[in-house]
Amino acid sequence: MSEHLGETQRFRAIVEYDGGDFQGFQVQATGRTVQGELERTLHRLSGEMLRVLGAGRTDAGVHARGQVIAFDSAWRHGPQELERALNATLPPDIAVRQVQVAEQGFHPRYSAVSRTYFYNLYCSQTRIPVLERHYLWQRQALDLDAMDQAAWMLLGEQDMAAFGQPTVGMVTVRRVMQSFWRRVEVSAYLAAPQVGLALQFVVEANGFLRGMVRRMVGGLVAVGEGRISPAVFGETIASRDISRSEPPAAARGLVLWQVKYREEYPDGRSSAPAN
Amino acid sequence: MSEHLGETQRFRAIVEYDGGDFQGFQVQATGRTVQGELERTLHRLSGEMLRVLGAGRTDAGVHARGQVIAFDSAWRHGPQELERALNATLPPDIAVRQVQVAEQGFHPRYSAVSRTYFYNLYCSQTRIPVLERHYLWQRQALDLDAMDQAAWMLLGEQDMAAFGQPTVGMVTVRRVMQSFWRRVEVSAYLAAPQVGLALQFVVEANGFLRGMVRRMVGGLVAVGEGRISPAVFGETIASRDISRSEPPAAARGLVLWQVKYREEYPDGRSSAPAN
Repeated sequence: MSEHLGETQRFRAIVEYDGGDFQGFQVQATGRTVQGELERTLHRLSGEMLRVLGAGRTDAGVHARGQVIAFDSAWRHGPQELERALNATLPPDIAVRQVQVAEQGFHPRYSAVSRTYFYNLYCSQTRIPVLERHYLWQRQALDLDAMDQAAWMLLGEQDMAAFGQPTVGMVTVRRVMQSFWRRVEVSAYLAAPQVGLALQFVVEANGFLRGMVRRMVGGLVAVGEGRISPAVFGETIASRDISRSEPPAAARGLVLWQVKYREEYPDGRSSAPAN
Repeated sequence: MSEHLGETQRFRAIVEYDGGDFQGFQVQATGRTVQGELERTLHRLSGEMLRVLGAGRTDAGVHARGQVIAFDSAWRHGPQELERALNATLPPDIAVRQVQVAEQGFHPRYSAVSRTYFYNLYCSQTRIPVLERHYLWQRQALDLDAMDQAAWMLLGEQDMAAFGQPTVGMVTVRRVMQSFWRRVEVSAYLAAPQVGLALQFVVEANGFLRGMVRRMVGGLVAVGEGRISPAVFGETIASRDISRSEPPAAARGLVLWQVKYREEYPDGRSSAPAN
């Protein structure tokens, strides 16, 4: 059924997913995708064949706690009822929250002013299988000071061509507002007597090139292991040459945490403040 | 090859696994099991068809950070080399550590004096898919005082027939040395702006009946939600009637954390101290 029973409204929602069993966000010729599951579920609920727009095309294995979607639907029972119906019907590895009617012209990708990604890793002599789906295993000890120093070099507006390819157009300049490592607690699984350390790289930018966070993390971990110095990491940035960057870190450590929109900066700034 | 090239030694090891893609620990007619993967990997490495003994038969979906195994092998290259070879060959959802030659007569199940299980849940208005594989989703608010009060009733030596069936023999009396709830941090995934609460039930006993922890948690959550009072929970214990207990909580929140052996109590006590 592609006929609508009435006029459509644009809805927006936050989408969370465990990316482990998905071939990424975007619908593909074959394979299970987040977009595909959302469109299929909306079809079951409303009878409409509609297209779901997403803020970011996360790759296979990448997770999300703050993906943002929008879609146009003739749904007439209110956004809260739609949220309940979606969560009752979606598979357990996807959930929605904050379903609401979007403002005129809202587009999850083009209206976004920043995205924040987290990259999680754990340091341990042996693999910890219960963490393997959501964290990178880091066996070798890390020099956290060197990693902080290198992460700091990513801040500001720079040509990021060394870390990825643009999804649209040719512009590879991106503005990074946050870039730092922090210790995170996973005390349900990392407690005495098997003490471990879990770390998270936090990066916020006005936009990301394809594979950019994972190549940044690949480089930062190389710095942490002492394979390259922070200075060499800086030279890699300056080279704008993707062949000089480290291989991307595994997808499973990456999570799309938050997408920010203009209205979330009430003084009308077009981007988030650097900090 | 079932011929041994020489005399065998008994080895022991700690095994960790993510239970999500296993039909439990124990080999079955069909389906992927932890024991099956271990035996297959040992066969690949040593050529021996050997039987792996486990401390606890965890059910499908149940995880482990501290399962203990033993097996007899003619492996001649030392336990550290065996640990490296196993971890290089096992699938990513299983890992071993502390591989060592076991003392004479060591049996992971019969030599054990206590097992400790954790049960993890998170409280949130909506499902959080990245936590779904390892935590129970708890939507309704919980009365933590009432849950603590009920957990306390599980301590000591009691007939636990209300919570499970014995795996061997008819004896349903078990001694519970630890039984309490605590808050755990999952700060990689539960941080502002989506603040959540994660809780862990810790229970240590000299042995567990089949389904015992999950039925205990089912009852404790019912107490937390106010569906039954702590006094009724106490009556359920006293009834020794499994038909009076709440349905078992989902397997995915459960993790076998640790198995203790006599030698870990140097003064020769046959069981762990209550606390």
